[in-house]
Amino acid sequence: MIEDLYPICRSITGNGLRATLQYLQRDLPLELVEVPTGTEVFDWTVPREWNIADGYVKDSSGRRVIDFRRSNLHVVGYSMPVNSRMSLNELRPHLHTLPERPSWVPYRTSYYEETWGFCLSHSDLLALDDEEEYDVCIDSTLTDGHLTYGEFLLPGETDDEVLISTHACHPSLCNDNLSGIAVASLLGKYLSPMPLRYSYRFLFIPGTIGAITWLAKNRQSTDRIKHGLVLTCLGDRGSPTYKRSRQGDAEIDRVVCHVLEQARSDFTVVDFSPYGYDERQYCSPAFDLPVGCMMRTPWAQFPEYHTSADGLELVDPDALADSFFTILSAIAVLEENRTYLNQSPRGEPQLGRRGLYRTLGGTTEEHVDELALLWVLNLADGRHSLLDIATRARMPFADVSRAADALIGCGLLREASADRVISLGTRKEG
Amino acid sequence: MIEDLYPICRSITGNGLRATLQYLQRDLPLELVEVPTGTEVFDWTVPREWNIADGYVKDSSGRRVIDFRRSNLHVVGYSMPVNSRMSLNELRPHLHTLPERPSWVPYRTSYYEETWGFCLSHSDLLALDDEEEYDVCIDSTLTDGHLTYGEFLLPGETDDEVLISTHACHPSLCNDNLSGIAVASLLGKYLSPMPLRYSYRFLFIPGTIGAITWLAKNRQSTDRIKHGLVLTCLGDRGSPTYKRSRQGDAEIDRVVCHVLEQARSDFTVVDFSPYGYDERQYCSPAFDLPVGCMMRTPWAQFPEYHTSADGLELVDPDALADSFFTILSAIAVLEENRTYLNQSPRGEPQLGRRGLYRTLGGTTEEHVDELALLWVLNLADGRHSLLDIATRARMPFADVSRAADALIGCGLLREASADRVISLGTRKEG
Amino acid sequence: MIEDLYPICRSITGNGLRATLQYLQRDLPLELVEVPTGTEVFDWTVPREWNIADGYVKDSSGRRVIDFRRSNLHVVGYSMPVNSRMSLNELRPHLHTLPERPSWVPYRTSYYEETWGFCLSHSDLLALDDEEEYDVCIDSTLTDGHLTYGEFLLPGETDDEVLISTHACHPSLCNDNLSGIAVASLLGKYLSPMPLRYSYRFLFIPGTIGAITWLAKNRQSTDRIKHGLVLTCLGDRGSPTYKRSRQGDAEIDRVVCHVLEQARSDFTVVDFSPYGYDERQYCSPAFDLPVGCMMRTPWAQFPEYHTSADGLELVDPDALADSFFTILSAIAVLEENRTYLNQSPRGEPQLGRRGLYRTLGGTTEEHVDELALLWVLNLADGRHSLLDIATRARMPFADVSRAADALIGCGLLREASADRVISLGTRKEG
Repeated sequence: MIEDLYPICRSITGNGLRATLQYLQRDLPLELVEVPTGTEVFDWTVPREWNIADGYVKDSSGRRVIDFRRSNLHVVGYSMPVNSRMSLNELRPHLHTLPERPSWVPYRTSYYEETWGFCLSHSDLLALDDEEEYDVCIDSTLTDGHLTYGEFLLPGETDDEVLISTHACHPSLCNDNLSGIAVASLLGKYLSPMPLRYSYRFLFIPGTIGAITWLAKNRQSTDRIKHGLVLTCLGDRGSPTYKRSRQGDAEIDRVVCHVLEQARSDFTVVDFSPYGYDERQYCSPAFDLPVGCMMRTPWAQFPEYHTSADGLELVDPDALADSFFTILSAIAVLEENRTYLNQSPRGEPQLGRRGLYRTLGGTTEEHVDELALLWVLNLADGRHSLLDIATRARMPFADVSRAADALIGCGLLREASADRVISLGTRKEG
Repeated sequence: MIEDLYPICRSITGNGLRATLQYLQRDLPLELVEVPTGTEVFDWTVPREWNIADGYVKDSSGRRVIDFRRSNLHVVGYSMPVNSRMSLNELRPHLHTLPERPSWVPYRTSYYEETWGFCLSHSDLLALDDEEEYDVCIDSTLTDGHLTYGEFLLPGETDDEVLISTHACHPSLCNDNLSGIAVASLLGKYLSPMPLRYSYRFLFIPGTIGAITWLAKNRQSTDRIKHGLVLTCLGDRGSPTYKRSRQGDAEIDRVVCHVLEQARSDFTVVDFSPYGYDERQYCSPAFDLPVGCMMRTPWAQFPEYHTSADGLELVDPDALADSFFTILSAIAVLEENRTYLNQSPRGEPQLGRRGLYRTLGGTTEEHVDELALLWVLNLADGRHSLLDIATRARMPFADVSRAADALIGCGLLREASADRVISLGTRKEG
Repeated sequence: MIEDLYPICRSITGNGLRATLQYLQRDLPLELVEVPTGTEVFDWTVPREWNIADGYVKDSSGRRVIDFRRSNLHVVGYSMPVNSRMSLNELRPHLHTLPERPSWVPYRTSYYEETWGFCLSHSDLLALDDEEEYDVCIDSTLTDGHLTYGEFLLPGETDDEVLISTHACHPSLCNDNLSGIAVASLLGKYLSPMPLRYSYRFLFIPGTIGAITWLAKNRQSTDRIKHGLVLTCLGDRGSPTYKRSRQGDAEIDRVVCHVLEQARSDFTVVDFSPYGYDERQYCSPAFDLPVGCMMRTPWAQFPEYHTSADGLELVDPDALADSFFTILSAIAVLEENRTYLNQSPRGEPQLGRRGLYRTLGGTTEEHVDELALLWVLNLADGRHSLLDIATRARMPFADVSRAADALIGCGLLREASADRVISLGTRKEG
C-alpha cells in the first residue's frame, strides 16, 4: 500500500488526496466527504482546491533541471501557476534547499500565502548557471472546489466512540505519513469482523484544516468520543513514543502507558504540548478530547523528516507491524476495561469450593493467577477499573482480565452499574 | 512461652488450638469463643473439628520411619484417618518433601479437601525401600465440633478500638507464628495496668477462617475499629517490615512509618497486597478497615518459612524484644496523637513570660524544644494532628507531644472538638 | 545607605530606630507610626522605650576596656542602667563572649527580662585582670515611650496588596539587616513612578513585636494582602534562598521559584518552618498570609551571624544588586500573572492571517514564539494563569507573557472575569 500510494501528489485538497482515499476504499467502506471551498469552519475557511499537472525549470537547452515528474516534492505545495523565463537571480528567491543535507530535497508548502516555488537538492542548486536564462513553469490550478476527507464508522455495542485519526495530506513522504495511513487502514480492516464494545471512527484527513473542518461539522457529537489516537510516523526504526492527551491522565493515556510498560522497556512517553499533529485540534480547550498521539520517532527528531529522504527505505515492515500490534493491544485493553463489584465483599470468598484455588495449603510457590483473583476481588468495589487493578497490582492487564472472567463465571463479580461508576469515577486514583 | 507452646499440634480447630489459648489465659483474661461446626460465616462454613492422637508409617520391622510423635509437621494438617498397609508406590502420592532442602520437613495442610498425607525430609524419603510394604496409620478424627478463638478487650477511655490480631493455627512453627502470639500476649499483659485512651481488642485466631468468623459475628461493630495491626513473623533476625493497610495512608500506616523512620534506617514498608495474613480479611472491600501488618522478614521470603527449619533456633530474643518495643512505640503515638487548637493564633504568643522561652535573645544555638513549641503553635489549627506536625517538622513525635503538653499546661492549646476534627480531618495532608 | 546607617544603635524601640526611619524618609514617603508603651497587641504588650547614651567598663587607670562608643554591640540590648564599681568576678556573669571566635563580639539582647550586660571579644575578656576593680556604667533609660515603625503604601490599580516587610531593629549588623532595609528602600523608590496593578505596602519594623503590633493594628485589613515577602540577609556572597510561605504553594511561592529556576542554578528553596523572621507572625495560623522570605545565606548558617563580623565588609554590592533584581523579577511576574480565556477555543485559530505565524510550512526549526502562542491558546481556559502556562510549557514567564500580549492585541484573548477565575482557581494544578 505504501509503495502504491508513494508516487501520488497529495495536498490538503485536490485530486491526489481524493485518489488516495479512493484507493483506501478497496479495503474499507470509507465515505469521502467533500466540503466546498469557502465553507467557514470555526476561525478558518476551507481554501480553494489545488491541483497540479506539471512543473519544471528548463535550461536553454530544454533540459528539465527541476522536474515535478521525477518527484512531487520539487514543487512547493499550493504553488500558484507560473510560466515565465527568468535569470537564476530572479528565480533564486523561489528555490528551497537544505544546504546541510546537500543531496536531499526539502518538502515545503504555502497554503495560505499566494506564492510559488521549487524545492531541490542543494547540490543541484550549485550546478545551476548564473548566466543562464531558465524557462519556469508550474501548471497548477487553484480554484473553488472541495476539501476531501475520508470517514468510516465501525459500529460497536455502544455509541461511545474511539477516534482513530491520521493525516493524509503529505505527498511523497513515507514515514510522515503513509505509515499512519497504512496502520490505520489495517486496523480498520482487522477490527471490522470483530465484535466490539466501542464504535470506532476512522478519519483520513488533511492535517490541521481537515481536523478543524471535521470538528466544525461534528461539533454536536464530539462528546461521544471517549478515547482517541492520532497515528503518525509509525514506520521508522525508532522505538515507540506516546504523547499524552491534554488531560494527561485520561483512560487512553493510562491504557497506552500500561501496554508499553508491560511489553517493553524501549519506549518514551511525553507530555502533551500544543505542537505536533491533529491532537492539537482535538485537544483545543473547548473540546479537550482524550486523544493522544502514537508515533515512533517524533516529528522533526529524525533527520529525514519533511525531506525526500523520508522515502520507501525509511519505513521498516517490522516497525509497522510492531506499531500495529501495540495499538491493537491498547484497543484490547480499552475494550475489556470495565469496573466490577465483588458480590461477596465481606472477607474473601472461598475460592477452593469453586475450583479457583489450590487445595493443598502451605506451599511456597507463587500462584500468579490466584493473586490476580485476589487483587480483583479486593479492589472490585466500583471505584477501580480492571486497568486500575492491573496498575496497582503491577500485573499485565490480560492476567487481571482473565481473573475477572473466571470470577464472573462463578457469580462472584458483576459489572458496576454505569451510574455508580460514573459517580465514583471522578475520584482520582492515588 | 514459645518453648512451651512449640510442641503442641495446632490447627484451625481442635484441642491443640484450644490448649494454646488456655495456656495464654494464665497471663490474659482471654475469652475462648467456640463456634459450632456448620455455622455460616459469610461465604464460608465453619468446618468440622480436627483432632489427632497419632500418625506413623512403619516398615515391616515395626520401626516408625515417619512418626507424628517426633514432630507434628509429619502429618498433613486435617488429614483424614487412615489405617492400611501399602507399598511405597501406593504411599508415594501422599508423601510431601522439599527436594531442594533435603533435610527439612515441609508444612502442609488440606483443610477443605478430604485427603491425607505425610510430610518428611527428602533424605528420609530417599531412604525408604521400594520393595517394602508399610503400615500406614493416621489416628485422627474429623467430626462436628467447634472452631475456637481467643478474644480479650482491654477497655480504654473511649469505645474506639485498636485491633491486635494474630493467627494461632500453626503447629510446630516458631516464627510463623508463635512469635506473633508471644508478642501479642506480652502487649496485652503490658498494657493491662496502663490508663489507655483507646480500647484494645486482642484476637488469637485461626488464620483466614478465624478472621472471617470473627468478622461475621461482629459485623455490626467493626466501625469501632479505628486502627489495627496483624502481628506475624516477629522473631527472625531480619529487620522490620510494615505492610500498609488497603487504605494505604490510614493513621496506623502513618504512625508506624513515623516510628520506623525516627528510630532506625533498616526497615521496609510495603504497599498493601491481597496476599499475606488476616489483613486480607480485615481489608476486604466491604470492611476496608485500617489494619496493617507488622512483620520482620515477610512470609515466603525466609527459606525456613513453612518448614521444620522454622524452629526454636530461628527465633531470636532480641528480635522479639525489638518487635515488641516497635509496636509499643506505635501504640504510644496512637494514644497521644490528638488534634489541638492554638488559643492565641494571631501572631506568636509570648512564650518568655510563660517561662517557655530563653530570655536572652541573639544566641545562635539550636533550641529543639522551642522549635517544637513553635511548630505546634503554628500548625495547631484543627487540621493537623500532632503526628502531622511531627511529620512536617521532621521531629520525633515525642518531642512534639512534650511541647504540646507544655502548651496545654499554660492554656495556649486546647484539644479541638471532635466535630471540628472530623470535618477537617477529611482534608489530605500534602 | 548601609554605611550611613551602620553606626546607629537601633533596637526594637528608641531613638536609633527612629533616626533610621527618618533617614529613609529622604527617599520614601514613609509614615512613622508611634505606638505607646503598654498598648496591648494580641498576646503581647508594647514594651517601654529604651535609649542609651553611653556604656563602658573602666579599669582603675580610667581606661575604657569595654566602650559602647567603639561599637554599640558592646552593650546588651535593653540593658538596665547601671553605675557601680565591682570586681571582675562580680562583673563576669554580665559579660558575653564567643570563645570559639575569640576576636568577634557577639550581639545579645534582653528585651523582656530586666538585666544588663556587655558583649566583648573573648581575647579582650582574657586580657582583663582578676585582681582589678572596674567602674561599670550603662547610661540607659527604659521609660514609657513608643514603639516606632515605618509604613508606606504605594497605591496601584487595585486594592490588592503586596507586602514587603523588613526588620529594622538590629544595631551595627550589616547583612542582618541593613541589607534588607537597603533593598526594600530601593524597591520602594524604583517602583514609585511605575504604573502598578497591585498596591505595595512597605514595612520597616522592629522584629517580632513590630510585626505583631502591625498585625494587631491592621487585623481588619490583612485580607487585602495577596502576596508578601519578608526581606532579610540579602547582601552576603551566598546564593539566594527562598523560604516558602506556610501555605507552601501560594502564588508568591510559585512565582519566586519560577524566577529562580528560569534564571539560575545556584539557589535553594526551603519549606516553611516557624523559626526565622517576621514570616513567623504573618504566617501564624489565624492569619496564614501568603508571605515567603527572601534571603541569601539563611540566618545562623553564616558564621558571622549576630556578631561584630557581620560588618560592612560582609555585604557585597553585587550580591545586593542581584537580590534586588531577583525580587524585581518576581514582582514583574506577579504584576503580569493574569488568567485569560481563549476567544476562539474550538481548534486552533488561524494565526497566519493575523501575522502571527510563518507562512511557509514544512520547515523544521524551532519557533519558540509560535510555541508560546500555542501554549497560551491551548491553556487559556480560565483555569490556568500565565504562570501555570509557563510552568507547564517549561518556558520563561516573559515569553509566555509576550505571547499573551500579542494574542490580546488581535482579540484572541481576553482576561477571565474575576468570578470565574476565583471559582476555578481553587482547583489544584497537577
